[in-house]
Amino acid sequence: MAQEIEVLQGGGVTTPQGFLAGAVYAGIKTYGEDKLDLGLLVSDRPASAAGTFSTNAILSGSVRVSRQRITRGTARAVVVNSGCANCCVGEQGIKDALETTALVARTLGIPQEEVLICSTGIIGVELPMGLIREGLPKITLSREGGHAFARAIMTTDTRPKEIALAFPIGGKRVHIGGCAKGAGMVHPNMATMLAFLTTDAAIAPPLLRAMLKEAVDVSFNMIDVDNDQSTNDTVLVLANGAAGAPPIQPDTPQASLFQQALTQACLFLAQEIVRDAEGATRVFEVTVEGARTLADARLAARTIASSTLVKAAIHGGDPNWGRVMMALGKSGAQVEEGKIALYINGICIMEGGVPIPYMRAALAHSMKGPKVHIRVHLGLGDARATAWGSDLTEAYVTLNSSYTT
Amino acid sequence: MAQEIEVLQGGGVTTPQGFLAGAVYAGIKTYGEDKLDLGLLVSDRPASAAGTFSTNAILSGSVRVSRQRITRGTARAVVVNSGCANCCVGEQGIKDALETTALVARTLGIPQEEVLICSTGIIGVELPMGLIREGLPKITLSREGGHAFARAIMTTDTRPKEIALAFPIGGKRVHIGGCAKGAGMVHPNMATMLAFLTTDAAIAPPLLRAMLKEAVDVSFNMIDVDNDQSTNDTVLVLANGAAGAPPIQPDTPQASLFQQALTQACLFLAQEIVRDAEGATRVFEVTVEGARTLADARLAARTIASSTLVKAAIHGGDPNWGRVMMALGKSGAQVEEGKIALYINGICIMEGGVPIPYMRAALAHSMKGPKVHIRVHLGLGDARATAWGSDLTEAYVTLNSSYTT
Repeated sequence: MAQEIEVLQGGGVTTPQGFLAGAVYAGIKTYGEDKLDLGLLVSDRPASAAGTFSTNAILSGSVRVSRQRITRGTARAVVVNSGCANCCVGEQGIKDALETTALVARTLGIPQEEVLICSTGIIGVELPMGLIREGLPKITLSREGGHAFARAIMTTDTRPKEIALAFPIGGKRVHIGGCAKGAGMVHPNMATMLAFLTTDAAIAPPLLRAMLKEAVDVSFNMIDVDNDQSTNDTVLVLANGAAGAPPIQPDTPQASLFQQALTQACLFLAQEIVRDAEGATRVFEVTVEGARTLADARLAARTIASSTLVKAAIHGGDPNWGRVMMALGKSGAQVEEGKIALYINGICIMEGGVPIPYMRAALAHSMKGPKVHIRVHLGLGDARATAWGSDLTEAYVTLNSSYTT
Repeated sequence: MAQEIEVLQGGGVTTPQGFLAGAVYAGIKTYGEDKLDLGLLVSDRPASAAGTFSTNAILSGSVRVSRQRITRGTARAVVVNSGCANCCVGEQGIKDALETTALVARTLGIPQEEVLICSTGIIGVELPMGLIREGLPKITLSREGGHAFARAIMTTDTRPKEIALAFPIGGKRVHIGGCAKGAGMVHPNMATMLAFLTTDAAIAPPLLRAMLKEAVDVSFNMIDVDNDQSTNDTVLVLANGAAGAPPIQPDTPQASLFQQALTQACLFLAQEIVRDAEGATRVFEVTVEGARTLADARLAARTIASSTLVKAAIHGGDPNWGRVMMALGKSGAQVEEGKIALYINGICIMEGGVPIPYMRAALAHSMKGPKVHIRVHLGLGDARATAWGSDLTEAYVTLNSSYTT
């Protein structure tokens, strides 16, 4: 079925029909590559909505508001700001999130409960509501506004991350659009960073929710930049049915195709986040096979992708594979040393728990490329998972030593 | 009782009576500040012995042998090598550990089971037994040999870490000596790195074991360099009774004094490891108070001390306290945002979950010193724990990008 999904170059969240977006520079963000900092994404009709949120116990007021509202299963608009996380500011964080969504609702003439909000940036300072009150009315919504919206969510990202896909459902051409931001404070075990997905397919909230979870589990939840988990992580999807295709029903070929496309969009955006991680020069993929359980495979792959020492070795193009074994061992996944096989870029390093003589110079050379693939076979079962990590660089440290000062 | 414990400047593992040590350069270690790489520590009489070991599922053959032998509760000698971890080499790792201890046992004329072994260095290469067979007989044991032994365990450490304490037990002057190595792959949740403690106090194995666990839990298990856990971590203590003091009995003032001294020695060595961490320029202490449970306090303190973003902020002397809240929130410890108070170097940053206006320039200035103290009060109970971390620096990344190449 893969050939049915077409990638639309230059597309984004407003590629699906019935979605409009726009952004302005309100003055909140005083750093980063792009100065847009206040964005709005709107469906011209009611849409099914689903979301996944950070599991951090300290949460942004924006996350608290959106998490509560998403339980309704429908939404019309998402307002986002970068530069300020609206987090660790007490009850004011909730108040400001409510006021911001109320302003949007009034402008659009829709119920306040239909407006979701996301914030990203510095923790511990209040949203500059004066700037937001002034900036919001200046946003012009358009069918091309998805690109401006994608730029308005960036913090230390060096480029926007966007995707659009098209595929047929019930004789109609439907679309999925998406954008995301990442850069730092990114670690598995939650919905990482901000990502927004739109679709003009018709799909009821419960099915949309289940499909989003499945897509997020193999994409955003399997990437790591720095082992730290944000207080603001959010993935949202809106489905407005504007393509006119019949509603997607569970356990049908259409549901399967939609799941495939949604997962493809999430995988692309998740990997874009890793590729554009703070200071990153190289991405690595970790596949763990032969695990006893899926939970073990996921845990092992994510622990290896998150290891500081593995990341540093990848940065140096250094075939220091003992660190992969160290990370595997500390992961908590069930392993039997004598059954482990390890491959880096297809070169067998270890088999049956014993190192194989390999051409060190050839491996080191292949590790200097932009992507490194680590494959571990545990020899205990059939479960398999893949995770992605960025390397740890001097530039990451420099960037994060002086973020607020 | 604190005044009863005297710190002996220039002391180490051979300060307690009846302990001899020595080291040579066998040619195993081809990097680092110090070229001694094969050391031997011996008690001239049988000694009670206890140990704690890495909980990593991938373990060095040396750890496997020592972990099994320590269950006997007595030991006479410890042989150590740096430069090679004797890990991920299949059954050969066990064979080489057994042969090395057999060589030591033959030389000393003691049973092989009384010899423990520790290795540290590169993973995935076999112990160069030819060098070990040649080097071992060249070791000269002496009462001053503790210093050479402390140097022989170093890898990327820039200096040896040693301590000696004296205090009275039953009218006799008894001693505790210790040395440790750290530098990288150091993270809580296990006996971290290599540390050796000796004492001429008399103490039965079960009590020694319990006391070591208590000391390690608040010291070595509360430090973090890089969130990675070694396959070779070991803490060993030998108690030979050579001071002639009566055996220490449980639940006595003597036991309490010994526990205090043992903990003091472990805390000193643990903090030395953090101070000398790879690339570190600054140490920070994290105290979590007011936690509901001790487990919560420990978890929260260790998670903050381990956060990559907190470490980077500490490196930059950057009062980016939102990262402390982020790490606290992701720790899994029970928190209520509205009850949290946060202090950095005694300056109140947050109270009742709300930021306090503070003198940013003054705080930033105080954070440029060699030590930073983060104190979090959770306002939920009485439990309290302290953890120590090193900062994350460009030099750490550079060092760990090219460790084997």
